[in-house]
Amino acid sequence: MLIDGSEYRSVWMDEQGLWMIDQNLLPHSFELRCLHSYEEVASAIRNMTVRGAPAIGAAAAYGMVLAAKAAPDDQFRRYLRTARDILAATRPTAIDLINGVNFVYENALRFIPDCKHARQVAEMSAFEFANRSAEDCKQLGIVGAEIIPDGAKILTHCNAGALATVDWGTALSAIRMAHRSGKKIFVYVSETRPRLQGARLTAFEMEQEGIDHAIITDSAAGFYFWKKDIDLVITGADRVCLNGDIANKIGTYDKAVLAREHRVPFYISAPHSTFDFTCHKGTDIPIEIRSEEEITKYGDSYMCNPHSPALNPSFDITPAKYITGIITPKGIFKPKEAAQRIQD
Amino acid sequence: MLIDGSEYRSVWMDEQGLWMIDQNLLPHSFELRCLHSYEEVASAIRNMTVRGAPAIGAAAAYGMVLAAKAAPDDQFRRYLRTARDILAATRPTAIDLINGVNFVYENALRFIPDCKHARQVAEMSAFEFANRSAEDCKQLGIVGAEIIPDGAKILTHCNAGALATVDWGTALSAIRMAHRSGKKIFVYVSETRPRLQGARLTAFEMEQEGIDHAIITDSAAGFYFWKKDIDLVITGADRVCLNGDIANKIGTYDKAVLAREHRVPFYISAPHSTFDFTCHKGTDIPIEIRSEEEITKYGDSYMCNPHSPALNPSFDITPAKYITGIITPKGIFKPKEAAQRIQD
Repeated sequence: MLIDGSEYRSVWMDEQGLWMIDQNLLPHSFELRCLHSYEEVASAIRNMTVRGAPAIGAAAAYGMVLAAKAAPDDQFRRYLRTARDILAATRPTAIDLINGVNFVYENALRFIPDCKHARQVAEMSAFEFANRSAEDCKQLGIVGAEIIPDGAKILTHCNAGALATVDWGTALSAIRMAHRSGKKIFVYVSETRPRLQGARLTAFEMEQEGIDHAIITDSAAGFYFWKKDIDLVITGADRVCLNGDIANKIGTYDKAVLAREHRVPFYISAPHSTFDFTCHKGTDIPIEIRSEEEITKYGDSYMCNPHSPALNPSFDITPAKYITGIITPKGIFKPKEAAQRIQD
Repeated sequence: MLIDGSEYRSVWMDEQGLWMIDQNLLPHSFELRCLHSYEEVASAIRNMTVRGAPAIGAAAAYGMVLAAKAAPDDQFRRYLRTARDILAATRPTAIDLINGVNFVYENALRFIPDCKHARQVAEMSAFEFANRSAEDCKQLGIVGAEIIPDGAKILTHCNAGALATVDWGTALSAIRMAHRSGKKIFVYVSETRPRLQGARLTAFEMEQEGIDHAIITDSAAGFYFWKKDIDLVITGADRVCLNGDIANKIGTYDKAVLAREHRVPFYISAPHSTFDFTCHKGTDIPIEIRSEEEITKYGDSYMCNPHSPALNPSFDITPAKYITGIITPKGIFKPKEAAQRIQD
């Protein structure tokens, strides 16, 4: 992605360690972090220095490389298993995380007891996982741009952009490609309380890319549907199930219901790593409940009645019946068919 | 309403002037303001020191009394007309405002050229308007409590409480009465971006009243509908049309659509002053667009990408077909019949 004219990925690895853009500071400050241990990676995922399902998956895969490097030869397997378990438990909803750590873990394990070789394989696997994710997302843009007509007014939610992935984005990849191909588009960016990934990160990406957009409160989407000012909705996903149900950032489901009520197409865009081929339906997906202070406070000050409790589910489930199509690197499929078709 | 054990109205008048609770400072600080001119009242309505359709209506009615007191005898009619026009133009969506100023203006005008008498009539009219509003709201609670079953989990939006009215509230009056009658209830308080009237004011009223509640982000309502954890929705209104369409705080419409999708009853609670007997349908209601800084900033700091524009419609329209019933002081009516029945 372009940031102030330079190309970046949200996460990458070199000989110094695992680098990531600190997404908690954006857009007010652009800072890179270099992590040197899997424990630091786990912490960065938990506190959302890196966020977005595919970006978390890549960060965790690279985290397994740091673990493999640190693992003593005589406890290699046990050390790696602990790292896998700790990384996998950082956040429960995005399946990319599990897919990323398991891909590296299982590939490396095959070469034990040759630990040196296992470390090399871990590294190659993490690069493969991250590169494939970036390639997948570029492809999501090429495929997804087709459903965006010239002149379209598009609603998106949260940040399904290059920051949320290794590069390009999922929903925003399609929007980026449509824009780069010369289509004149307008994007409603729903701010995405409580952490404002829409207002902070998607708006930042739209500005960097020169795409016409405006931030709205999450609950203003209904008003623009009612005004017939939204032509289509595209969001990312944190997990896609076998039956086509998906989990995504809290506030996705209500937009899907509104879209259907107004006969507006509602698309999900997801790379291979976001599919969970063991999960049958949305009700099987664990929903992360985060701290109530994300809602009640801004910095150190209370935004609300300080003695009131808050409930903070971070994701919701959108059943397949509300989804017009799932944009995948292999094409756009009906939700019920997507998991099958992406494996064909 | 009870605040720290003492009885208050949100607005009232005595020989010192027009008093109001400063709602911009709640719940962090409880301060009263005393206003002495209709220009100060106009400013307090614009900057939302006083907000909520019925409370605005009463404040504006009292504002007309301040205007009548200040009007020179030889320009009484012209002065009063200017005051009416300025007060009526402070906010466009809530009809109570227009109803309040016109009630005082038209009653006073009948006694010109006897300015002394006209001033007395203005004062009596404003008291009558405010007292009727408070009585209406108490009645809304008695009528509305009937549709709240014991054990109900209720979703409300924005603040349709005692603060938003002269006393008691509209939606919250029903909730208050249900609680006082011993029903065990739980209230989901949607925070109501951008100005957080739910998180600040409704949560404050719930705490003061000892009602079990939790704040949620506006876009989390869908998740709780999906979980079948919401039994009914009650909100207030800023205007009720002849055909039963209503305007209310942005974010009301999406909850109405979600309620219908989940076959959950959706009620509006409105006193007489919120009915617009000249407005045929929702599309005729002007929607106030407020400053984008309400969305982009918190205090002096940007919450979002600082170079991105924002769109800030403050109200949305909920068509009659999504409304189970309108709770009025005279009973609960089908939306299409409510305007007729309340006049019967």
